[in-house]
Amino acid sequence: MQKQHLFDCHQRIEPFIHETPVLSSQLINTVVGTVIFFKCENFQRMGAFKMRGATNAIMQLGDEQKQKGVVTHSSGNFAQAVSLAAKSLGIPAYIVMPSNAPEVKRNAVADYDGKITLCDATLKARENAAQKIVEEKGATFIHPSNDMDVILGNATAAMELLKDQPDLDYIFTPVGGGGLIAGTALAAHHFGKNCKVIGGEPMEADDAYRSLQSGKIEENKSANTIADGLRTTLGNINFPIIQQYVEKIILVSEEEIVTAMKLIWERMKIIVEPSSAVALAAVIGEKEELQNKRIGIIISGGNVDLKNLPF
Amino acid sequence: MQKQHLFDCHQRIEPFIHETPVLSSQLINTVVGTVIFFKCENFQRMGAFKMRGATNAIMQLGDEQKQKGVVTHSSGNFAQAVSLAAKSLGIPAYIVMPSNAPEVKRNAVADYDGKITLCDATLKARENAAQKIVEEKGATFIHPSNDMDVILGNATAAMELLKDQPDLDYIFTPVGGGGLIAGTALAAHHFGKNCKVIGGEPMEADDAYRSLQSGKIEENKSANTIADGLRTTLGNINFPIIQQYVEKIILVSEEEIVTAMKLIWERMKIIVEPSSAVALAAVIGEKEELQNKRIGIIISGGNVDLKNLPF
Repeated sequence: MQKQHLFDCHQRIEPFIHETPVLSSQLINTVVGTVIFFKCENFQRMGAFKMRGATNAIMQLGDEQKQKGVVTHSSGNFAQAVSLAAKSLGIPAYIVMPSNAPEVKRNAVADYDGKITLCDATLKARENAAQKIVEEKGATFIHPSNDMDVILGNATAAMELLKDQPDLDYIFTPVGGGGLIAGTALAAHHFGKNCKVIGGEPMEADDAYRSLQSGKIEENKSANTIADGLRTTLGNINFPIIQQYVEKIILVSEEEIVTAMKLIWERMKIIVEPSSAVALAAVIGEKEELQNKRIGIIISGGNVDLKNLPF
Repeated sequence: MQKQHLFDCHQRIEPFIHETPVLSSQLINTVVGTVIFFKCENFQRMGAFKMRGATNAIMQLGDEQKQKGVVTHSSGNFAQAVSLAAKSLGIPAYIVMPSNAPEVKRNAVADYDGKITLCDATLKARENAAQKIVEEKGATFIHPSNDMDVILGNATAAMELLKDQPDLDYIFTPVGGGGLIAGTALAAHHFGKNCKVIGGEPMEADDAYRSLQSGKIEENKSANTIADGLRTTLGNINFPIIQQYVEKIILVSEEEIVTAMKLIWERMKIIVEPSSAVALAAVIGEKEELQNKRIGIIISGGNVDLKNLPF
């Protein structure tokens, strides 16, 4: 992957995304003993970095593909991202969601004109429903994390962060399906000055940690984590990038995630989802080794169910 | 009050406060049918606009007064504001708090080195305890809202907002003790272009609404509102300013406050306290008359108890 690809990608999607702010908190810096720059993708359109990858993937389609639309299966942020990106670009989006998806998430997709197909809450049922739409409508399937155009789109968050703060020693991201950390690692490799990328992952969904140890893609044994965006597993496109460019992955407990989330909410007065707090929890877990370093954190998103908070 | 006083005040306190951001939300603009600029004092130091008034009032003291320190009685943001402002300026702060004040608020004051005196939870007990400190320590009492230096300090939030957005037709603020809206009205008078100031007030604590009608300061009959910062009443210094410069006051229900608060949290991904949502609730209540107007809202603060949310 060439540096130019990343430049081109950012230029392509720029009109359709927000350049989100980079925030700091003196209080959190004091608590952690280091300097942290938060790239606030919770302020991104539809509330998460996924808008970047979805927009890039859709824009890379040919004219005929665009006309027939796109399809994905997701109950979370990627469903909203594909719906809104497709709407912005004037093409149809078909979203397969499990029938037990919260009403708030179904409404969000519907608000962005996503055409919803409900299915059983198994991966198999989702894949079948999506495949059926591919066949019947001729729509193009877009994977939420294991797609090179999605990964490149996601990389633009770290590119903007490094434009704002060129001298970062580390960037931390959460690790779920691997699309954010793979893109971030490519951006840090091409645009950082020896900037290392570290992932934070819940102990309860530690597939990426174990995959890096074993050298092959491992499945999650459970996914019983509050960080609902991180319950998915790595894919064959992002895993080699992670192997090559990511420094390491740090596991954090559920308690550490909630503590970090509360710290951000109370001290920074911004709403971040539990998955975002995983990255700060990882920084706090490593704080002895990070004293006086300059650290970036990608705040992945801010879509939470206010009726169901962990405080 | 001359324009120059406001300039001087802003210049005086500038090194000790944050110039907070002005944010907008396309989604909220669409919902309300108007263009709203939120001046985000939830990102102010200690989390509320009160930092501005407290800082100015303390800086206006003489050297001997400064040495002996300041005292206030408050269970809320002003206690934290006086503590932090005094700490920044290197002088002692004595804070009288009711013994039933939440631990989180006592801890916040203690974190800023405020010296806490607990008393019974009545206004009389608070005033007596504060008076005792004035007599024993020679400390200067600072009122949270009925003090001209506090009012001028508060005015600087609207001054910054009007510097960023000079063509506002209206600025909305919440109304509690009257110190924020009085300062905002002075700022709009001197720095706006025919910019009108409107207050939002809970129906459950409607003293300012009734005071403007009767022409004299009325007491609250109840103060059973979620907007805990707005349970106080107007004073003889801010009331004449409000009478002269404030366009009107709009009453909002508890349900309207919670709806507006949820809208800000969900759509803007920022944490605001219920009192701040009162101003947006008032805008929504008047939206028919406000179509296509340019509106500023002072988001008063973001200090909430995450264990006790109204969602």
